[in-house]
Amino acid sequence: MKSPHETKVCVIGLGSMGFGMAESLLRAGFAVTGVDVNVEAMERFAALGGAVAPDPMTGAQAADLVIAVVVNADQTEQVLFGPRGAVAAMGSGGVVMSCATMAPDRARQFAARCVEAGQDFLDTPISGGALRAASGELTVMGSGPSEVFARIRPVLDCVAAKVYELGEEAGTGAAFKVVNQLLAGVHIAAACEAITFAKAMGLDLEKVYEVITASAGNSWMFENRVPHVLEGDYSPRSAVDIFTKDLGIVADIGRHLKFPTPIASTALQMFVMTAAAGMGRDDDASVARMLANIAGLELPAAGGLVGEG
Amino acid sequence: MKSPHETKVCVIGLGSMGFGMAESLLRAGFAVTGVDVNVEAMERFAALGGAVAPDPMTGAQAADLVIAVVVNADQTEQVLFGPRGAVAAMGSGGVVMSCATMAPDRARQFAARCVEAGQDFLDTPISGGALRAASGELTVMGSGPSEVFARIRPVLDCVAAKVYELGEEAGTGAAFKVVNQLLAGVHIAAACEAITFAKAMGLDLEKVYEVITASAGNSWMFENRVPHVLEGDYSPRSAVDIFTKDLGIVADIGRHLKFPTPIASTALQMFVMTAAAGMGRDDDASVARMLANIAGLELPAAGGLVGEG
Repeated sequence: MKSPHETKVCVIGLGSMGFGMAESLLRAGFAVTGVDVNVEAMERFAALGGAVAPDPMTGAQAADLVIAVVVNADQTEQVLFGPRGAVAAMGSGGVVMSCATMAPDRARQFAARCVEAGQDFLDTPISGGALRAASGELTVMGSGPSEVFARIRPVLDCVAAKVYELGEEAGTGAAFKVVNQLLAGVHIAAACEAITFAKAMGLDLEKVYEVITASAGNSWMFENRVPHVLEGDYSPRSAVDIFTKDLGIVADIGRHLKFPTPIASTALQMFVMTAAAGMGRDDDASVARMLANIAGLELPAAGGLVGEG
Repeated sequence: MKSPHETKVCVIGLGSMGFGMAESLLRAGFAVTGVDVNVEAMERFAALGGAVAPDPMTGAQAADLVIAVVVNADQTEQVLFGPRGAVAAMGSGGVVMSCATMAPDRARQFAARCVEAGQDFLDTPISGGALRAASGELTVMGSGPSEVFARIRPVLDCVAAKVYELGEEAGTGAAFKVVNQLLAGVHIAAACEAITFAKAMGLDLEKVYEVITASAGNSWMFENRVPHVLEGDYSPRSAVDIFTKDLGIVADIGRHLKFPTPIASTALQMFVMTAAAGMGRDDDASVARMLANIAGLELPAAGGLVGEG
């Protein structure tokens, strides 16, 4: 790969994850162009000294690397292959990194279309949240040709603390990410059910947090999300709608493979109920508010937010 | 409290947890009498130099402390207050520790009956598993009068690495344990669903374990139980039937309090399905075998155990 300032990277999607990745790359001296439909995000990126472009085709002109960090497979297809999509505009022999959580089949389709267009494709779902995106410490659950991984290693090292290379074929990275999201979603729903159940039994919730995080009932998500409930802070670190989407992917795959996913499907319904109650764009710990609202329980409040959509 | 060798402790229930506790106390020099309906367990305890008795009433004669480590509230009631029960036989001013997982109401009832009979009662559910019981490193989620905790401190220090004193009233310890079991049960079911789902997608399960345990999808139970699946070893460290019982308690409490527990109830059904398929006494990771059997997937085998009840 060329030196950073000669390497043209186009980041499509300046949401909480994409913005952090673009910012990390900019800091490291890469020539980064940001693209988003949200003008405010583009202005924030320009204020940091980044280039911006009005659409993927313009942003990806002669790019060495396009990183698609949009919400789902449909948006990824749109920004890569749609009208004014990125792939046709890239310099030949470029690389496309696809970061959205999606069904493995979709990642495989995108890989085939990229290769057909003369570009390499890496299936690189990410995890770690907005803070670690900004600090360049994401985890990448990736798959694709190892020589392509090697080629963009400086970019990966810039955005991620840990890069798993899980196979030579697109789709494998996506599948690992889906397994992670199944567990993450179930654990959030379980954490919310458990802490609200504890409230229903009249327990001291701070004490519950202390005991459970030191016990066999702990999960990464319990430890990370229950503080949002204890502080009554449902500003979205990660939104309910992310899990209606990701557990929806699990449900689709399960149905397609004829594999039953009873617990993931129940968790999905809890996120759907929370979204239906008007909290889809709030923090995913809002599942606890949904249950508390149903059961007439009062969870800790901050700024009178509890019970509001 | 008197010195260990003058302190008479009766441990009722020499299952995997009770045996380990009795063994730890014996090692520390307490005068321990073990009671169990299982003659083989009594013989093993006698072989270590412990005293044994044919029933709770005989074992608890003049005991300073009775520890009930049986399976559930009904058995606890039986061994404490039933015909040939322990409480009536104890020296007055003794202490009863109740360790089974149970609904808070039951623990409160037992406390009242003990106090009426002139004994103190501590609501002390335990967690940590058989190995930590044997090494004296359990976690106690306890409640009851703090002066009673102080009085039996040498015993607690002998059996537990960590003793939470969660309130002055019986029932609070039980409620904390139930919250822990809700999460533990859901996380086991989710771990089994996720690893079998990964198999259905054709992933390398060892790799899945490596990636998930380093990611936000991790839980204490995923980390602890998935190795049983990877090794195809379903010998019971903790049995499926434990969770049909403990998640049954969650379901009962939820219904009684009119608090919905969708995710715990789904996990309960998965344990019931696994028990129905003949694996109730096998390791709780057998939920993965149940799903694999339904879906015609082959999980790792050890000694041809996979697929057998």
